[in-house]
Amino acid sequence: MNRESLFREIQKKASFLCVGLDTDFSKIPPHLHREEDPVFEFNKQIIDATSDFAVAYKPNIAFYEALGPKGWESLQKTLDYIPKDIFTIADAKRGDIGNTSSLYAKAFFETMEFDSVTVAPYMGVDSVQPFLEFKDKWVILLALTSNEGSKDFQLITSQDGKPLFQEVLEKSATWGTPENMMYVVGATRGEKIAEVRKIVPDHFFLVPGVGAQGGSLKEVAQNGMNSQCGLLVNSSRGIIYAANDLNFAAAAKSEAKKLQQEMEALLNKHL
Amino acid sequence: MNRESLFREIQKKASFLCVGLDTDFSKIPPHLHREEDPVFEFNKQIIDATSDFAVAYKPNIAFYEALGPKGWESLQKTLDYIPKDIFTIADAKRGDIGNTSSLYAKAFFETMEFDSVTVAPYMGVDSVQPFLEFKDKWVILLALTSNEGSKDFQLITSQDGKPLFQEVLEKSATWGTPENMMYVVGATRGEKIAEVRKIVPDHFFLVPGVGAQGGSLKEVAQNGMNSQCGLLVNSSRGIIYAANDLNFAAAAKSEAKKLQQEMEALLNKHL
Repeated sequence: MNRESLFREIQKKASFLCVGLDTDFSKIPPHLHREEDPVFEFNKQIIDATSDFAVAYKPNIAFYEALGPKGWESLQKTLDYIPKDIFTIADAKRGDIGNTSSLYAKAFFETMEFDSVTVAPYMGVDSVQPFLEFKDKWVILLALTSNEGSKDFQLITSQDGKPLFQEVLEKSATWGTPENMMYVVGATRGEKIAEVRKIVPDHFFLVPGVGAQGGSLKEVAQNGMNSQCGLLVNSSRGIIYAANDLNFAAAAKSEAKKLQQEMEALLNKHL
Repeated sequence: MNRESLFREIQKKASFLCVGLDTDFSKIPPHLHREEDPVFEFNKQIIDATSDFAVAYKPNIAFYEALGPKGWESLQKTLDYIPKDIFTIADAKRGDIGNTSSLYAKAFFETMEFDSVTVAPYMGVDSVQPFLEFKDKWVILLALTSNEGSKDFQLITSQDGKPLFQEVLEKSATWGTPENMMYVVGATRGEKIAEVRKIVPDHFFLVPGVGAQGGSLKEVAQNGMNSQCGLLVNSSRGIIYAANDLNFAAAAKSEAKKLQQEMEALLNKHL
């Protein structure tokens, strides 16, 4: 999916919501355990319930990988089930030397057909470039993450006086374009989003950490929105585990709708 | 596998060779394409041919992931086939926020039963810690990689005058111990290995890049060996693709043996 189509979806749905499909077998409602593929059945009902309010779905690959080959089948079925006008993100945080990154790109863009994949920057340009060679596919590069450990290296200041995440943003912005690269920018650091937005004014940000991780949607929009919205804000647990009983899908729908309505107001205000 | 058992294997085989199982369907001998699981059949014959000379096997996960669920089955069968006294490395370069890293750890240490997994440091302590909670399992953290792009960020100098890879080594050495943490140190930078060895005198290094990537084994041993060897030197393509015909396994054996003999001489000299 290209940038124009993504922005059109955002306008159409008045939403920049990404639903994180971090589906943990031990947390899904017990009545689904009887299904042949409980993880897929859960995702299917979540997608049905939330697809009017979401412009992106983001399965975190670890949750599927932990289940072995069966998990990958659940993931593939989930991906196939997501409506084609919704942006898909393989939250995989991959990255390896060139020929190996090509294979990861193949895994997520060809074997499966995700629109985008999250990539870790530590190994540099030749670990990222192979992902950028696919038309209408996206790299979502880790820049400033929302976890406690992000301080360990991402905030180290270089001799040029720049924190590492800034070096990552500046250098990587020359590898791709706002048409094929986005950045992961943690929402628990509201003030930091404005700083990142200054460095890369045009790129989309994938913002985790609204909801369970404690970020404020209002602050994110205020500091991070650009003229094409430029934000995909993710919520996982807050939506998919809103309830743990027969009504889990309705509860997920209600949470997704609530976020979409907040987003609609913010889009009206800032766009 | 613990450090003591690993060192015992190194002494017994007079080898610190790791064979990289980067098995690419398009590169395996055509006569194997008829097999039900060509990737596993190839690996099986490579393992049979090289297990006398290798102390570790390292499948690069991208090669299996690119094949979808079937690839994961080939990987699992390969892992099950590796003799139990040989150290196994999932070269996966994973890393995510805490609860997600726990799932990656589960995927590689429980669902599959690898001894170790390679992890990217960018997200900091809480992305690495979950892997360290498994007894006799190892994190192999990316420190200084062998690819061209390693210069982009790993060599950036901080205000304290330290390159990023040194910050990674110093900080992460306090998270784990030489009993549950190793480092990836690229062999194409001989002079750098001595520098890394000074910072972390006791840890094992996984050294890629001997052979196809152009590093010298002699230089690596001279600069990197410690009193418990402290090295696992990987060769992938140079061994597994030594020939592409009916004799591929014999050719792999011969290459592995050649490296083992060089290693034996180096162990005698430096240990």
